Order: sequence, then structure tokens, then C-alpha cells
Amino acid sequence: MSYAKSVKIVEVAPRDGLQNEATTIGISERVRFIEELTDAGLWTIECGSFVSPKWVPQMAGTADVLRQLKRTPGVRYTVLVPNLKGLEAAIESGVEEIAVFASASESFSQHNINCSTDESLSRMSDVAQAALARGIRVRGYVSCVLGCPYEGDISLKAVTRVAAALAGMGCYEVSLGDTIGVGTPRKARAMLSEVAEHVPIDRLAAHFHDTWGQALANVLACLEMGLAVVDSAAGGLGGCPYAKGASGNLATEDLLYMLQGMNIETGIDLGKVAATGWRIANLLGRQPSSKAALAWKASRTND
Amino acid sequence: MSYAKSVKIVEVAPRDGLQNEATTIGISERVRFIEELTDAGLWTIECGSFVSPKWVPQMAGTADVLRQLKRTPGVRYTVLVPNLKGLEAAIESGVEEIAVFASASESFSQHNINCSTDESLSRMSDVAQAALARGIRVRGYVSCVLGCPYEGDISLKAVTRVAAALAGMGCYEVSLGDTIGVGTPRKARAMLSEVAEHVPIDRLAAHFHDTWGQALANVLACLEMGLAVVDSAAGGLGGCPYAKGASGNLATEDLLYMLQGMNIETGIDLGKVAATGWRIANLLGRQPSSKAALAWKASRTND
Repeated sequence: MSYAKSVKIVEVAPRDGLQNEATTIGISERVRFIEELTDAGLWTIECGSFVSPKWVPQMAGTADVLRQLKRTPGVRYTVLVPNLKGLEAAIESGVEEIAVFASASESFSQHNINCSTDESLSRMSDVAQAALARGIRVRGYVSCVLGCPYEGDISLKAVTRVAAALAGMGCYEVSLGDTIGVGTPRKARAMLSEVAEHVPIDRLAAHFHDTWGQALANVLACLEMGLAVVDSAAGGLGGCPYAKGASGNLATEDLLYMLQGMNIETGIDLGKVAATGWRIANLLGRQPSSKAALAWKASRTND
Repeated sequence: MSYAKSVKIVEVAPRDGLQNEATTIGISERVRFIEELTDAGLWTIECGSFVSPKWVPQMAGTADVLRQLKRTPGVRYTVLVPNLKGLEAAIESGVEEIAVFASASESFSQHNINCSTDESLSRMSDVAQAALARGIRVRGYVSCVLGCPYEGDISLKAVTRVAAALAGMGCYEVSLGDTIGVGTPRKARAMLSEVAEHVPIDRLAAHFHDTWGQALANVLACLEMGLAVVDSAAGGLGGCPYAKGASGNLATEDLLYMLQGMNIETGIDLGKVAATGWRIANLLGRQPSSKAALAWKASRTND
């Protein structure tokens, strides 16, 4: 048990959260959301993606979001980029950091982006190379690290191979995604342990979905191993496309409450995150899928 | 990290869950609920309490629930008993196990049952003595082990003193309750560590509420220390009387999903628990406050 003294939270609600919601949130509301998250103290925020609006209408207008945003110095605004065309659009928008991705599951890769994992790694390598040449930071995502909706279990070897490939192409950090939220702590720990033998743990992040309510326990298991970067989404935004009605990303509020209680620094204001998470959830016609957000509101109402 | 090979789950939804819900569930539905939980494999189930229906209308008719119940051999049906009068009613209902309780917080004790912790321990000791003399098993609850709605932090010494007193009066097991769900893993671990120096860990149970979304992570921290008994409620039933709109008990479904994924045996069928949890939640006019229950239903709908 040697927890990091501080943990970096990568806020993914404006991208990974909103892209999986049935309701599309307008550009000005997304801008306000990102600005409020920044005001709460988050300093790495995934703002959108340059994918075809035909496939992901929720992310249409990412260029406008970036244009309208009042940028705060020191804050990293990142966007997801699937290919060189997306990178061009990102560069036009003055982006300083992008995220690329590949799946540890062959079937998921085929279903999701219609190519093999190796083909996608090759494509991502081109994107990373071009980005790095322009001084743009690159972050990598591995999806399906704890299970795949088509294949079930995924071998640690497959996860490690993709994580190492992303690190090898210059990703400063590789985020390990339990895309469908099926992991449990022992498996999370075994996976991280294996990957960390090939990519230093200080270049790894946990990106766990809360589909089965396991995300925070899985994060705890990883923190116990010294991991210090965690992805989460305000309000627990984002459902699961493979299980309609299920929960989305680990909620930033739940994560923050745990870290604060453990005296692990984040520099982030839970109340401000909860407030903006509630606002967006209300726009989506529901309450946040974060228990800490519910308790936060209840505790204010009781005052 | 030395997890128990199997974990006993004490199902508390019919009592601790339902008593904190705004809607009162009728006797026949409570009977059916307990029978369905038994059918799912749960073998220790808190069925109700013999407190005044003036104070807890949701538990009115506990004697009728016990009378109408088709009892399964080997299953432990327990009831909460606050005093000798309650014990008499429990004995008349043919109960073989009762639960008594005391608070680690003086203020909570005064607000909740209008007497000091010492006075309540003395009362509980009388109840325990009378019960044990008739061959009735006694389980003890300590409330506010990780915080109090009136006092905030509670000293480990206070928690340990009450836990040891309950063990000393003959409780075969002492359940450590984070009544308002404010604990986090480091604090849960420190608390359990301290108590376990005075009461053997195999006589301790974790009873954590999920108000701030921390319950499962806290349970994980305790399991890592060798704890092997956990209280939970199907559907995550039970709100928090100190935070209206917040979540209730740790959901049995979320706990089961984690234990199954960690190859820790429970003998319980997650699907059956989820089904009966959904049924009761629907009677309460809402969905379960269990992410695993939502994912379970979604995965069935997708089939």
C-alpha cells in the first residue's frame, strides 16, 4: 500500500461522457461545461473528438467548442483523433494535445472501427508521428482491457501489447480502459501489474466505467499499486452502448470524495464539479449517475 | 492481501433497507421479498424489527411477516430488537436470532434513541442476556463507526469500546456500521484494524452505506484485511434519513458482482437478487440504486 500523494484526474465527461448520451448537448452548453470544469480545478479535460458527425452526432461542432472556449493558461484541452484527417482538423483548432486509441480486442476493433488492432495501431502511429512533429502531445487509450462485449475475457498479453505499442509511438501516457465496466479488483490489479512490467506505471492511467458499480473499487486496487492518474466524468456521464440503461464512466465526484477522504491531493473542488454535473444531467433530463453528486445535493438541501 | 475464500452476505434490505424508504411495503410483499431472497441463496436475512410502529411505520407487522413466511431450513431469519419488550414479541414470533445495537457516537445515541451510549449498552446487555438464556443467537450493530451526522469524526477508541461491549455481552458477531456512508478506504481500514485488536476479525462484519458511493471500495479495503462477513441490501434499498435523495445500503448486487469476479464464493445467484430487488424498487416507484442491477436488466433486454 503506497498511495501517491497526489492524483491527476483526467476529466472525460465532455467527450467520453457526452458521446454516449442519447441527447445531444449544444455547443454553447458544452463550452460552459468545460469552463465550469476548469473553474473547479480540473486541468486536463477531454473536450470533444474529430470523428465524423455521421457516426457520433453528439461530438459535432468540436471545432466550434474549441474556438468559443475561454482557455485558461496551464489547462490541457485534449481531443480524440481517429485519423490524419481528424488530426488536421485538430491542428486547425489550435489543439496542443490529442488522444489516439486502439483496442485490446480484435472483435471490438472490427466492430468499432472496421479494422484489425494492428491496422489501427499503424494508423495511430501515423497520427502520433505527425502530431509529435508539430509539438502536439499525444495520449493513448487502450479499450477493452478488462473484457470485451464480443469476446468476453481479453488476455493480459493482448492488453500489454497494445499499451506498449501506444507508449512506443510516443504517447506520454497510456490510459487503460475498462470500456464496458466488467472488471473487478483482482483482475484490475493483475492487468495493471502485467502492463506495468512493460510501460512504467507513472505513464499509465485507469479509465474505468461503472457499468456494474465496480469502477471505484477497481481504481482503489490500482492506487494501491502506485497508480496516480485516473480518468473520470463529472456526473458519471455516459451510458454504455452495450447495455442501455446502465451507468457510464466513473463519476468524478465519487472519485474525488474517496481521494479527499484518503488525504490524496487533487486540487479539485467537489462541490463545483457536482454543480456542473447536475446542470448537464438536468439538460439530459435526468439526475447524475454519481452517488456523491446525489449526496452533495441532499446535504445542501438539508442545510 | 489475503482474501477469504468465501464471504457471508447478511441481507438487510427487508429491515434496514425498507425502514428508510418513504413508501411502506405491505406484509405479503415483504414475505415474498424474503422468500425470493432465500431462493437466491441468501441464508442470513434481517426480516424486520420489533420497534414501535409509531416511530417506524415501515416495520409494522413484523410479527405477521414472520408468521406468514415459509421458512427454509438452515436459513437464519433475524429481527432487530431495541428492548426487552421487543424481545418478548420476537420470542412469541419464534425468532432464533435477534440483532441489538448501540452507537459509537453519543450525540447520535441521544438523537436516535434518547439515551447515552452507556445506557443503551446496559439495555442491550439485558436483552442479550435474556435472549441467550433462551438459546436465541444475538448479533450486534455499532452505528456511526466512520462518522456521525451530528459530531462528524468519531474516535476509533469510541468505536472499539462499543464493539467490544457488544462482543462481551455475547453477540456472536459485531457489525460495524457506516450509518451515513461517509467513510473512505483508508479510514475504513484504520477503523477495522483498531477494532480487530479487541474483537477477533472473524467475529466482525462490515455494514457500509453507499451515500457517497464509497461502500464497495470500503468493503474491498476490509476484505484485504481478511474480513469475511458483509451486510448489504438487494437493490441498494434504503435512503439516508440525514440526506434525502441520497443512496442507501451497499447493494447486494454490486457486492456480489465484485466477489464473483474475484472468485470469492458466496453461493448466491446475482440474477435472482437483482430480479427481486427490481420488483421491490418498482413497488417503491423507482429503479434500484444498484448499478449492477441496472446493468443486469440492460444485459437481459439486449439478449
